[in-house]
Amino acid sequence: MSETEALEESAPRHKRLTEAVAARDLESSRRIINEASADDQRRIISQLDLAVREQLCELLPPEEIAGLLEHLAEPQAIEILEELPAEIAADVVENMSAEIGGDLLRELNPKDTEAILAEIENAAESDDLRERASYHWESAGGLMSHHVLSFPLDATVADVLADLETNAEKYHDADVQYFFVVDDDQRLTGVLSMRSLVLGRRSLPIKSLMIPDPISVTVHTTLEELEDLFEEKNYLGLPAVDEEGKLKGIVSRRAVTEALSEHQTEDYLKASGIVGGEELRSMPLKDRCLRRLAWLGPNILLNLLAASVIASYEDTLAAVIALAVFLPMVSDMSGCSGNQAVAVSIRELTLGIIQPRDYTRVLIKEGLLGLTNGLVLGLILGTIAFFWKGSFFLALVIGSALALNTVLSVVLGGLIPLVLKRFKADPALASGPILTTCTDMCGFFLVLNLATIVIQQL
Amino acid sequence: MSETEALEESAPRHKRLTEAVAARDLESSRRIINEASADDQRRIISQLDLAVREQLCELLPPEEIAGLLEHLAEPQAIEILEELPAEIAADVVENMSAEIGGDLLRELNPKDTEAILAEIENAAESDDLRERASYHWESAGGLMSHHVLSFPLDATVADVLADLETNAEKYHDADVQYFFVVDDDQRLTGVLSMRSLVLGRRSLPIKSLMIPDPISVTVHTTLEELEDLFEEKNYLGLPAVDEEGKLKGIVSRRAVTEALSEHQTEDYLKASGIVGGEELRSMPLKDRCLRRLAWLGPNILLNLLAASVIASYEDTLAAVIALAVFLPMVSDMSGCSGNQAVAVSIRELTLGIIQPRDYTRVLIKEGLLGLTNGLVLGLILGTIAFFWKGSFFLALVIGSALALNTVLSVVLGGLIPLVLKRFKADPALASGPILTTCTDMCGFFLVLNLATIVIQQL
Repeated sequence: MSETEALEESAPRHKRLTEAVAARDLESSRRIINEASADDQRRIISQLDLAVREQLCELLPPEEIAGLLEHLAEPQAIEILEELPAEIAADVVENMSAEIGGDLLRELNPKDTEAILAEIENAAESDDLRERASYHWESAGGLMSHHVLSFPLDATVADVLADLETNAEKYHDADVQYFFVVDDDQRLTGVLSMRSLVLGRRSLPIKSLMIPDPISVTVHTTLEELEDLFEEKNYLGLPAVDEEGKLKGIVSRRAVTEALSEHQTEDYLKASGIVGGEELRSMPLKDRCLRRLAWLGPNILLNLLAASVIASYEDTLAAVIALAVFLPMVSDMSGCSGNQAVAVSIRELTLGIIQPRDYTRVLIKEGLLGLTNGLVLGLILGTIAFFWKGSFFLALVIGSALALNTVLSVVLGGLIPLVLKRFKADPALASGPILTTCTDMCGFFLVLNLATIVIQQL
Repeated sequence: MSETEALEESAPRHKRLTEAVAARDLESSRRIINEASADDQRRIISQLDLAVREQLCELLPPEEIAGLLEHLAEPQAIEILEELPAEIAADVVENMSAEIGGDLLRELNPKDTEAILAEIENAAESDDLRERASYHWESAGGLMSHHVLSFPLDATVADVLADLETNAEKYHDADVQYFFVVDDDQRLTGVLSMRSLVLGRRSLPIKSLMIPDPISVTVHTTLEELEDLFEEKNYLGLPAVDEEGKLKGIVSRRAVTEALSEHQTEDYLKASGIVGGEELRSMPLKDRCLRRLAWLGPNILLNLLAASVIASYEDTLAAVIALAVFLPMVSDMSGCSGNQAVAVSIRELTLGIIQPRDYTRVLIKEGLLGLTNGLVLGLILGTIAFFWKGSFFLALVIGSALALNTVLSVVLGGLIPLVLKRFKADPALASGPILTTCTDMCGFFLVLNLATIVIQQL
């Protein structure tokens, strides 16, 4: 190995890949990519400049781009697919499994998707992909696997077992936990579990072992409905049919669990102010800035609302400047107390221990707790204020403001998730901002209004 | 139906149950419970007074308490089990599946667990439960199912299929996706999937179809290690063995996914200030208050730290009282910007796009974004300040403070999760409080220090 090569080996792989791409060196580019694990491929690709990434896609044949995209995180794969000319993108999609191809096309904007589908020559394949892409990702159609085994009504257990043995290769990708029984028009008429099949007498017709009229969903059943179904009973998978009752695929519990966790991730991102889908740091700076600002903008307004409370008491503040020190403390502390109550309500809603209509119970339970903790915290902060500033009345104002605002925010924090749930809004998403704005405004108001009342003593 | 009975039917069920329990009316109590769905049972039980709940448990026979506990949310079941006298609790646990019994005993304090186990007469059963309870819930032992099918090395495919057909009843609870092959000492030597079995020639010995030396975990393998294993490969389940290599159970992907989601729930609760496990509103008020205060206490200190920055600039504040209006706005707004960067970092870490050592990349990417958004937001808030208060220099102070603090908090927000991850701390848990304290202190400092510099012009 020459010295230059040794040096190159030690350079970060995205730099080596950049050089290989610049030199149009297909062999080296391919080697660097293929030697990396899937995780490393994600990191390398995210560190490439946009132009280099485009050149790399020009260099690699479509089937290798397809293989690479299957290893990347989905938002990365979508980003790359969007940049490719429709013709190449179509070649790439054709080289993927229809399942993954459909998932990716679903996430592109409809115009791009149509442009890519138009470039796919095989009409059956493009129709199939169009159908897959048309389902919402949070519906049974978007979540189902198309690899599903079905057998005609009059087959016997022995027939099915023999067929499985013979066609082992062909069924390689299929889920073999459930077999479906269909009539001559491919309409779902029964379901047969692997266990009944294996444990059943070989000579019996599957018709006699199957559960007739099985519970099924349509391709349009929503994720929320699926969640309820899977929660209610211990299904491992549910068949999905189209409007005519024809079997289209199977939705597994695992697919639903994964979609729910993706949904939670989206909620977490939204609650943190990342709206409109994923943000990757490899995206253009302008897009990232604009999307983050879109959420920060309205927040300025909420903050102005709270600040206007302070502004209307400037005389009081000017007279007792020490109040300014305690304003953020009172609003922050009661915000924290309120958040605890939010968490308990969301948790009890999830566990099914409370329902949106149980507001009296929450009001009483949180009211009592708010009173107790409000008194304790008010006493602590009041004492601190007294020894810090030496004024009994200042201590009284600060202490009572925190106590009262704690009661209010604990009760609000307990109730807001119930109200949001009742109006079909997502408690985890909206409770925070609503609570914060309320407790800020009330906290500022209480401190400054109480101070105004006893202003002569301060 | 008499009028009183009609009235009683319409009363909330927890009230009717309370009356039935007070009248020691076993039949009515049983009927109210059994007519309710699992969800309703959770709500009814949570609304009973502590004393009534205890009386109910005295009234019901142990096997019915066991049935009820299996329907309740786990924290509820644990609460009730803790209250029961050890002797009754033992009878209840004996009437549950060993799986659920072990799960509950694991969550009690060790003294209570031992007291209950001592009351179980069947030594084999209490040893089995003791072993189950001894595993950590976030380990393979705590997550595994004990219902696992194993066959000796020299059995044939036909033998296994025949055995399955014959013992269908016995294997009712077992997972029949995987079969394990064990030697004469019950040590794991191979694994055989349902698909290889069903698709295999009937005359072959399973030895020739099995995958020898299968990947296995020990009962002590941690949830984190399990997560990595399941992420790496598409396993549906992994066998768990003890120190001697003896097969003890199987850990399913589903059990790991569920444990991870429980773990995330715990993190969410902790991040919201609910520490030390679940809080249910049916718990005694004193316990609820103390646990919430335990977290709020340290928060007072963090808040004092931030407030002390304001206190050291009281002269400046007294001179320009309008500053007090903008202090919370600057710290809140930059806190929001920082949280966005936290969310993107946590997401990229989860997707494997960045690693803790990629801090230069995050520094550059977030630095550029922080500069851009800081300028935009600073300009907006500066303009608002100018038109509100009519002072160019005040606008300059507020605008630049927000701009600078945004750069700082966006960069910090991007980096804190990486640093926490590097030191094996949980980014989702600790990033928030650290970021908030930093951005509050710096925000207050920037506004007040810049104002002090240009105090003559304000």
